[in-house]
Amino acid sequence: MEAALRVGLAGLGTVGAGVAKVLLHSENALAVRAGRPIRLTAVSACDRKKRRGIALNGIAWEEDALALARRPDIDAVVELIGGENGVARPLVEESLKNKKHVVTANKALLAHHGSALAALADKSGVSLKFEAAVAGGIPIVRALRESLIAYEITAVRGILNGTCNFVLTQMEATGRSFADVLAEAQKLGYAEADPALDVGGGDTAHKLTLLASLAFGTSPDLNSVTVTGIEHIEPSDIVFARELGHRIKLLGMTKRTAGGIEQRVYPAMVRAGTPLADVEGSFNAIAVDASEAGSFFFEGRGAGEGPTASSVIADLVDVARGNNGPAFGRPAAELAKTKSAPPDAHTSPYYLRFQVLDVPGVMAEITRHLATQSISIESMIQRGRAPGEPVAVVMVTHEAPEGTVKRALKAIAASDKVFERPCMIPMEAV
Amino acid sequence: MEAALRVGLAGLGTVGAGVAKVLLHSENALAVRAGRPIRLTAVSACDRKKRRGIALNGIAWEEDALALARRPDIDAVVELIGGENGVARPLVEESLKNKKHVVTANKALLAHHGSALAALADKSGVSLKFEAAVAGGIPIVRALRESLIAYEITAVRGILNGTCNFVLTQMEATGRSFADVLAEAQKLGYAEADPALDVGGGDTAHKLTLLASLAFGTSPDLNSVTVTGIEHIEPSDIVFARELGHRIKLLGMTKRTAGGIEQRVYPAMVRAGTPLADVEGSFNAIAVDASEAGSFFFEGRGAGEGPTASSVIADLVDVARGNNGPAFGRPAAELAKTKSAPPDAHTSPYYLRFQVLDVPGVMAEITRHLATQSISIESMIQRGRAPGEPVAVVMVTHEAPEGTVKRALKAIAASDKVFERPCMIPMEAV
Repeated sequence: MEAALRVGLAGLGTVGAGVAKVLLHSENALAVRAGRPIRLTAVSACDRKKRRGIALNGIAWEEDALALARRPDIDAVVELIGGENGVARPLVEESLKNKKHVVTANKALLAHHGSALAALADKSGVSLKFEAAVAGGIPIVRALRESLIAYEITAVRGILNGTCNFVLTQMEATGRSFADVLAEAQKLGYAEADPALDVGGGDTAHKLTLLASLAFGTSPDLNSVTVTGIEHIEPSDIVFARELGHRIKLLGMTKRTAGGIEQRVYPAMVRAGTPLADVEGSFNAIAVDASEAGSFFFEGRGAGEGPTASSVIADLVDVARGNNGPAFGRPAAELAKTKSAPPDAHTSPYYLRFQVLDVPGVMAEITRHLATQSISIESMIQRGRAPGEPVAVVMVTHEAPEGTVKRALKAIAASDKVFERPCMIPMEAV
Repeated sequence: MEAALRVGLAGLGTVGAGVAKVLLHSENALAVRAGRPIRLTAVSACDRKKRRGIALNGIAWEEDALALARRPDIDAVVELIGGENGVARPLVEESLKNKKHVVTANKALLAHHGSALAALADKSGVSLKFEAAVAGGIPIVRALRESLIAYEITAVRGILNGTCNFVLTQMEATGRSFADVLAEAQKLGYAEADPALDVGGGDTAHKLTLLASLAFGTSPDLNSVTVTGIEHIEPSDIVFARELGHRIKLLGMTKRTAGGIEQRVYPAMVRAGTPLADVEGSFNAIAVDASEAGSFFFEGRGAGEGPTASSVIADLVDVARGNNGPAFGRPAAELAKTKSAPPDAHTSPYYLRFQVLDVPGVMAEITRHLATQSISIESMIQRGRAPGEPVAVVMVTHEAPEGTVKRALKAIAASDKVFERPCMIPMEAV
């Protein structure tokens, strides 16, 4: 049997401790898988005294994570510190420069600096693997990088943030407001103290960027992603969605269009009965359209110790086996610059909700503005009557470019019979 | 760039022609993926004159597929002939012996001889890859072999035969009989002229054997699979299933139990709303329970040119990259002999349908036989009354071992008030 792959582990939070447990407790099983032992040699974390339920005796402790990049007795560094700033970036960079393989769950770092890091890995002839960065335990990175490669991928849609899906699922189940449900999720530990990156869509954007790169052979390009979060979803939107036979899900979506590649994060109306609509709670899921190979759907746990450690371990075994293909499935030098589709060119049917004064003429005014932009209406719901009071009016449009819908909404919002900002949510056909 | 991987392709049916097309038309894209060219060097098929829509000039033609195993200008053989007998077996054996990598879609061959062939590959230091043998384009072989490996897998359930799923879906949609729908499927080319291997469950058993081996680290063991096909499913069972909130699907299922590993192929009542229940038409799907990593679900096209060629090409790129891990994820010498759970020990709730004479006392007789076997009844349906005539009675039991249910049914079938063989279908909790 070959010499052991010697691993340095940076970050001993939930996932890091989970990875350490598997490395320490399943050494023999992993050696059978990898054809050689995988040995945890050194670790680094903030607090040495914290109880983690793992015995780290005999394993070197580094106060400074960066030291892992320099130890001659380490072949592969597992970076589970996270964040695009801080020590994670120099740790990954220096590890790659020093010809150490890197396994990371750091989507923010890769979304911002993926190309440069992949180029470093290529130059050093080592691996940069990140299965754990997207969708927890679901092997979607490997599927796009190594399996669905014979035919062109045309679109990828995913529910990639468990916090958002949990909040939306709870809003649906309880009828409570976004703020209420989020506060409860924070209390239960399902949402971060600062939830902005999750509910604002930024985390989904990081992950989407990586999926788009794998699917289309482009450099990860976070700046091209149009991002809308779930903060403005009202309980009434969720009720109307159900009436329309849909559910609201925060999607990351990327697809090829004639005008370029679309990359969008947005709450979407997903038709009930389609696989993405049925994804509950903290699960993640990804649907891939792969032209001649057909459509694929992957679902699993999107976060947490077990699912994420599962992906880290799989990458380590891959590294130990010598499966050192390029990070994004093609050499970094071959990754194309994204030609982005103009965001306003995105077409789909739209759900529109207006808060209007219940007086004669208001519908005529709204429909006139839509007609001016050549937007036709597929259906309309007005629930209840309240003459002289504000009521909700919902319209579903036929397929229309987002730019025209936005222009119509701007004109409608200027009316003195319309209160609040009108709400627009794209309806997904699939 | 490294030298090309030179490929010999045996079998030019739908899938073989699809593989040839991708190799010929996407040579540059594949070279970027693989880090070296992949070159179709020689082919073999029955009929040289058949039109296949591919230009094979410049590519050697072998009348005898076995010759591919002996050509010094071939590094990898793609076997798409199929069948456990015939030329496929000697072709794969001799190719491996001659240190040629093998990529195959041949589930029958691997289900019968997988261990021996994997051992040959190990001995020669070459790959034996078979993503295309299970579930068409779904990368489930790679997922079980390389991704879901950190934690114990406890169960795998799959809809693995598109023909059966098409027939069951059609029976459900139209209310027509199995024989009617099958005849139509044959006319449309969705079912083989000899459908026995599909509808009898044998094809699913072949695939299940491979999934069980990957999941549990055992030698593929076809003899341990209990197989029931869909031939005896009546339209009335499908109607009752719907009333009970279930759908009937032909499942391949393997799980660890205290008594050993269960491997079963059977029509099951799958609860509506669970992912497997929603798999329509010719799609395939697999649900994996991976203990701490959670549950996973994979869905995609289970057959046809594009999906199957996609898997063959992915395996070839893997081979070209030098990713030559063992066929079943562990060296053949490490694969354990399956310790099979006794089939009668399988426990689940059961759907039971009896055709009985509508006379007083018949229910008392049935329930007495169930009680004798300690089987308790969860619910009962008798649709309509027809005094003195045969009527259908359906019972759903609480969880019970299959052996006791069979014994009860045998006693019940002996009654002069019961017509036909009683029907029993396990209900899946997931």
